[in-house]
Amino acid sequence: MKKVVIIGGGFGGLSAAKVLAKHEFDITIIDKTNHHVFQPLLYQVATTALSPADIASPIRSIFSDYKNVEVFLGEVKSIDREQRKVFFNDSEIDFDYLIIATGSRHSYYGKDHWEKYAPGLKTLDDALKIREKILLSLEAAEKEKVSDNRQKHLNFVIIGGGPTGVELAGAISEIVNKNILPDFRNIDASMTKVYLIEALPGILSAYPDKLSKHALEDLKKLGVIIILNEKVTEVNENGVQVGNEFIQTENILWAAGNQASSLISAVGIETDKSGRAIVNDDMCTKTDENIFVIGDAAALKNEKGEYLPAIAPVAMQEGKYVAKIIVKGIDKNSRKKFKYNDKGMMATIGKAKAVGVIKGFKLSGLLAWLVWSFVHILYLIGFRNRLRVMIEWIWYYITNRPGIRLIVKYSGDKINKPLS
Amino acid sequence: MKKVVIIGGGFGGLSAAKVLAKHEFDITIIDKTNHHVFQPLLYQVATTALSPADIASPIRSIFSDYKNVEVFLGEVKSIDREQRKVFFNDSEIDFDYLIIATGSRHSYYGKDHWEKYAPGLKTLDDALKIREKILLSLEAAEKEKVSDNRQKHLNFVIIGGGPTGVELAGAISEIVNKNILPDFRNIDASMTKVYLIEALPGILSAYPDKLSKHALEDLKKLGVIIILNEKVTEVNENGVQVGNEFIQTENILWAAGNQASSLISAVGIETDKSGRAIVNDDMCTKTDENIFVIGDAAALKNEKGEYLPAIAPVAMQEGKYVAKIIVKGIDKNSRKKFKYNDKGMMATIGKAKAVGVIKGFKLSGLLAWLVWSFVHILYLIGFRNRLRVMIEWIWYYITNRPGIRLIVKYSGDKINKPLS
Repeated sequence: MKKVVIIGGGFGGLSAAKVLAKHEFDITIIDKTNHHVFQPLLYQVATTALSPADIASPIRSIFSDYKNVEVFLGEVKSIDREQRKVFFNDSEIDFDYLIIATGSRHSYYGKDHWEKYAPGLKTLDDALKIREKILLSLEAAEKEKVSDNRQKHLNFVIIGGGPTGVELAGAISEIVNKNILPDFRNIDASMTKVYLIEALPGILSAYPDKLSKHALEDLKKLGVIIILNEKVTEVNENGVQVGNEFIQTENILWAAGNQASSLISAVGIETDKSGRAIVNDDMCTKTDENIFVIGDAAALKNEKGEYLPAIAPVAMQEGKYVAKIIVKGIDKNSRKKFKYNDKGMMATIGKAKAVGVIKGFKLSGLLAWLVWSFVHILYLIGFRNRLRVMIEWIWYYITNRPGIRLIVKYSGDKINKPLS
Repeated sequence: MKKVVIIGGGFGGLSAAKVLAKHEFDITIIDKTNHHVFQPLLYQVATTALSPADIASPIRSIFSDYKNVEVFLGEVKSIDREQRKVFFNDSEIDFDYLIIATGSRHSYYGKDHWEKYAPGLKTLDDALKIREKILLSLEAAEKEKVSDNRQKHLNFVIIGGGPTGVELAGAISEIVNKNILPDFRNIDASMTKVYLIEALPGILSAYPDKLSKHALEDLKKLGVIIILNEKVTEVNENGVQVGNEFIQTENILWAAGNQASSLISAVGIETDKSGRAIVNDDMCTKTDENIFVIGDAAALKNEKGEYLPAIAPVAMQEGKYVAKIIVKGIDKNSRKKFKYNDKGMMATIGKAKAVGVIKGFKLSGLLAWLVWSFVHILYLIGFRNRLRVMIEWIWYYITNRPGIRLIVKYSGDKINKPLS
């Protein structure tokens, strides 16, 4: 049987594996974690609304019934293209076909030392760190007797006005002010400030103007302070410099820019300036027709000459497309080029507030939020997770009490130490 | 209003606070974590059956409706008994009454360096570390090509045959062999070995003989290897020395012995050799009638001259008892002595297998397990957690698939590094 190795169990890798598993192939999936995570809902883990297990599934349990699928926990550091071998954590494995679906991390545009103070949100570990950071900050504010010192615990700064930044700003404002603060005795909602900073003139710049403005109004109603047309010039342990203003805060979240995983350039694949593989229009690399790169790790343009966005539907469609090429054994010259079927995009701002474009129709408010909820539950992996998320959302909708407000890692002596 | 400070939000502290909150007192709860954890189900978090949030509640949300209750995250390091002040993380607070309910950690009987290799199970952080350890070990075994090297990843050693040890041994055997291993391709149930080591001649020594033997048989049916009458003489990174045998393993769990939190002796309260406060029969300290110690942190004997066990019902009854003394302002000479109302004890071994003594009636098998399940759901804090745990258990009972198999902290490069 031909051997297919898939690096990465995100949306792209998983979609490819699901198609291939039904055919006569030896399939190996290698991932840095043991689980697939539903990234569009990560911000809800970071903001105490969902548990990690609600939005993640062990990759090997997804393929439990497919005995031709093998899953390894490990990080691929190099690939031998001549010998057709992949190397990870003291192990090696042969392949006939290779699918690289290693995703992306946030880009700090050369200021990588900012990451320490302004974490991004790509993994469950990221989400839990952010959750603990937010909760610890509120605990510190409750204990602080000098009000001048208190404010930096109650300022929240989100950098980047794309969907992730908007969802984080909305969720933090709503959950902190309406749901968490009533349990505190020394601080109240009038003291918190949530800032959303965007260098462009508007938020959600990929959306139609009308919806961007709608989202902006919704965020303002939630009390979010929006700073547009300004660049962040400094991030440190005390706060954020944006334009002429220095915002004192210990809560900085990074939601700006993507950068492909470093594996792509490390194995000598040609990349663009974001580190993404420059692929042919059949998703294979320039030098090898049986090595494919998909999802956030690949740079591919549509007919209009625009890069396809780094979102789940693109990765999933690319995964299925590549799997079909492999199943049918189509050679380089006979492959039809990949075409992205854009079904739309959505972002949620808060309870009963969202914006979206579905098949060209613009939606906002409660209707958009209901469609958003339905679509996200539908695409979650596994009936169990769908059920759990639905119960959590209904519970939250009725009671306004988010459930997962745990600080697990930091206790006792470690409380005042910086997060690492 | 009189000020009551409660150190510790476990079963004892919480029970006291719930009584006091309904009366005219200023109440402050200080805890090292931000949550109350339902310790009897911690082993289910460690063995992938439940999520942390299923068995924990933020302490401040439990007292949301009581404006006279204030909650601080912090670790108390000293107490000034003359000035009636408690000091924690750069803060101080006055008290009229003080309730110390700081619980216990595991005792390594002077071999504290064993803790690194053989963690105990007292907090959510402990449970998550053990969960990751077990799952990482199975991942390492799946990847290992040399079968001699593989066995140490598949040996699990539990030290201590009390309720926690029995529950861990049963759960690990059942979940690993029946539920997790079917998802692996290179290892199977015949390769795993679960050892339970007890220095006494039998397990569950506090239980009637008949039930101890029943539990022993149940564990053997699950494939657990039970070593009795043998002491552990060495624990290190390669395994465990017990009697003449050295068991190679990277999975060692400590479920032997308790030791009261170090605060008790640090503040000069007279202690027994386990570090527990020697209290009067009204739970106050020998030197101060308004400073009480309750729960695992206190050493108190019943009429038969036996120490009360370190279990939730004892702590809860002591908490309520002390709170009533404070509410009524009863002085030293008029206090009736504390009397523990022993309703029984239970331990679960696996699906549909448990043993218990309830009001003198001995129970085992399915019936004991149903009673165990009912009692544990009943005593969980909050309707939400009751609902969640019930759904998880019913789901697991029907599908045999535990849900929470996530390795969050260790990914990529960090996989092969020791847990810290």
